[in-house]
Amino acid sequence: MLRNDQLDQWDRENFLHPSTHLGQHARGESATRIISKASGVYIEDRDGTRLLDAFAGLYCVNAGYGRTEVADAIADQARELAYYHSYVGHGTEASITLAKMIMDRAPAHMSKVYFGLSGSDANETNIKLIWYYNNILGRPEKKKIISRWRGYHGSGLMTGSLTGLELFHKKFDLPLSQVIHTEAPYYYRRQDDSMSEEQFSAHCAAELEALIEREGADTIAAFIGEPVLGTGGIVPPPAGYWQAIQAVLEKHDILLVADEVITGFGRLGTMFGSEHYGLKPDFITIAKGLTSAYAPLSGSIVSDKVWKVLEQGTDENGPIGHGWTYSAHPICAAAGVANLKLIDDLGLVANAGSVGGYLNAAMKDALGDHPNVGDVRGEGLLCAVELVEEKATRKALDPTRKVTASIVSAMVEQGVIARVMPQGEIIGFAPPFCLSQGEADKIVDATTQAIKATLG
Amino acid sequence: MLRNDQLDQWDRENFLHPSTHLGQHARGESATRIISKASGVYIEDRDGTRLLDAFAGLYCVNAGYGRTEVADAIADQARELAYYHSYVGHGTEASITLAKMIMDRAPAHMSKVYFGLSGSDANETNIKLIWYYNNILGRPEKKKIISRWRGYHGSGLMTGSLTGLELFHKKFDLPLSQVIHTEAPYYYRRQDDSMSEEQFSAHCAAELEALIEREGADTIAAFIGEPVLGTGGIVPPPAGYWQAIQAVLEKHDILLVADEVITGFGRLGTMFGSEHYGLKPDFITIAKGLTSAYAPLSGSIVSDKVWKVLEQGTDENGPIGHGWTYSAHPICAAAGVANLKLIDDLGLVANAGSVGGYLNAAMKDALGDHPNVGDVRGEGLLCAVELVEEKATRKALDPTRKVTASIVSAMVEQGVIARVMPQGEIIGFAPPFCLSQGEADKIVDATTQAIKATLG
Repeated sequence: MLRNDQLDQWDRENFLHPSTHLGQHARGESATRIISKASGVYIEDRDGTRLLDAFAGLYCVNAGYGRTEVADAIADQARELAYYHSYVGHGTEASITLAKMIMDRAPAHMSKVYFGLSGSDANETNIKLIWYYNNILGRPEKKKIISRWRGYHGSGLMTGSLTGLELFHKKFDLPLSQVIHTEAPYYYRRQDDSMSEEQFSAHCAAELEALIEREGADTIAAFIGEPVLGTGGIVPPPAGYWQAIQAVLEKHDILLVADEVITGFGRLGTMFGSEHYGLKPDFITIAKGLTSAYAPLSGSIVSDKVWKVLEQGTDENGPIGHGWTYSAHPICAAAGVANLKLIDDLGLVANAGSVGGYLNAAMKDALGDHPNVGDVRGEGLLCAVELVEEKATRKALDPTRKVTASIVSAMVEQGVIARVMPQGEIIGFAPPFCLSQGEADKIVDATTQAIKATLG
Repeated sequence: MLRNDQLDQWDRENFLHPSTHLGQHARGESATRIISKASGVYIEDRDGTRLLDAFAGLYCVNAGYGRTEVADAIADQARELAYYHSYVGHGTEASITLAKMIMDRAPAHMSKVYFGLSGSDANETNIKLIWYYNNILGRPEKKKIISRWRGYHGSGLMTGSLTGLELFHKKFDLPLSQVIHTEAPYYYRRQDDSMSEEQFSAHCAAELEALIEREGADTIAAFIGEPVLGTGGIVPPPAGYWQAIQAVLEKHDILLVADEVITGFGRLGTMFGSEHYGLKPDFITIAKGLTSAYAPLSGSIVSDKVWKVLEQGTDENGPIGHGWTYSAHPICAAAGVANLKLIDDLGLVANAGSVGGYLNAAMKDALGDHPNVGDVRGEGLLCAVELVEEKATRKALDPTRKVTASIVSAMVEQGVIARVMPQGEIIGFAPPFCLSQGEADKIVDATTQAIKATLG
């Protein structure tokens, strides 16, 4: 085994890490952590530190770590057939079986799944197919995509444009002009305090409609949204939001893309967020929970309505000019098959719902009255604690104090990993679905103690 | 095990295949092939048909199929630690070791590697970093990317724009405006027959310079090219091409991206195409050969010059706003480590060079005088046979006759898989590096017989 200090040196010399301060990392001014093993909700680093991962990697290890059923499926597939492509009608037992399993779980009006590798590339595929769709229908001007401020839909050029967060735009010349943004369904940060949730939802729908009318409905192809805002702050929609939004989209013949990278396959206690909130999407983006991150795999699920136009398109124009070498990679598909089966066998979707409800209630009990806790919110196994300078006025903390970062560091000292959400002063939680009530208590205790130690 | 006819039905009902005629596939009008196992240069489908895969999947199974060393590394990693992210300085022994192995093999002036999943997403990362680079340097207008007609750099929105092939643009509203194209270094299809290769290279460089001057050098950020054109027709550069191009880029302070997704890690008989042709790139895109497709993994290698500006950027602006959940996925990194070690241990780069030379010479011997063979070309283990109506005038075949598709189908009947390249009448070959001379002979024989059976 390699010595830790050698790995540390190799790391700083050779490895360009994502979402990292590159200068500090290369100069050795910031910590590294080399993860060596993991089981259930716990990870362990090479120094022997064991941590409860209350963010499941990046909201993705839904089934929990160390699942031998998934590891064995990967191992078997690697030995049987590690790779063949899926172009021009080629497949493998794993990829075809997984396509069937996905469509069995998806809402009834959905038709077929295209496989990618990441949520980003699946949203890239969605936009390509949306533009193709409107070209086939003879509507060449109907192409713009509406996303929400605080939405997260990827980190590429177009998908980072869909993302409505400053960190992903600044210095990258994003968003590109094909993407426009509308108001975030962020009830806690509403302008008009007097609004009920329903009134705020109506306001968001009116803002959307005004945007569509300003741009011209014949220029707007699609609206993309996460059922629950994720990286933008873990924000469940206010009451009536999706019904109000969908009425506007339907009126203007605008497609709906439900980005279920985080919510798909059970995080809300239901198989899909679309089902949870009554969405009827034309596209569903899936990734993380599809394999519980045991191997990289994503998908774009298209509806019957979209599929019919894609068929017409290839009948008129020949094979579709879109493909990734690793679409439906056999090892990743095998991981997906084993993961979805395991989630069923262990009843993990129901557990996400019940332990998620417990975690959210316990967090609210423990912290709801703290003077610097403005909001405790969540749904299923998603939870967020938003910190403020002053509870009554929702006055923001001074960002230069980096309070949330200090709290999350203090939580690590107590053995729990949470996430500093990238915009605002928000602590995020998205644990594996196998979380027990005792482990939920441990998360709440660590959060409470760290907040008290930092803010009193 | 599932019955074949059930898989076939599930496939047609649920699976949106890449690069496929969607209507024909869903209606059962086109063939499917379900691959079940593979070894060396051979794949086998569920009906027991065994085929010599002379395209290594999609130019990617470089080490050959059925390598237990790579499968075992994947299995071990899956059981030890299937996933943790690499954000904010996190790593694993596999990902750090692979970063070190890549940088040990890359040209000396390169600095660090960012990990992605596909060649498409790596080129997406490259463009993001290029735009960031020029923003940090205070050159906000210097952003356009020049690619070549017939280049292939991905299938996304921006990366499909870089790609210079009609199939990837038509009906998708591509290329986007940030990408402009210059002449392909396609000597066989030069306009002026009297030009030598060196004269044609000078002509391509002059065309590039004229384009830069028309657009304004202060608006052009980078030039991207494959050392050998791949999906655009497998076209090695004419003599002196890269020297002439690089002189123009240097003069106008334009970055060079070498897309080595196909050529990286040995396909030309050298570790990188950059080394083979004397390129000094600022970015190198890697994917396929990095893992021999045993797991999805790509990378963007940045030069010292670029790295210094990225460091400055994060010192000025904080952590870089770019990341994929599956960057440096442990299982994919473990596959990469085992694959690069195996390629060294078996001397496969040298074999690619020697058997590649043999294959190209044998193909030329067998087909060079055929009246419908306009060109036989290649380098290392890349080879192309271009068909024409008339040899002397290079007159094109009538595309509605689909002659190349018929020949490649006839080759399958003889047990060999080659590829119909998507633009022109070109048969492509890119076998695994473990190809033997006997297997090369089998490829040449099947090609020759299929061409004679189809064209006489």
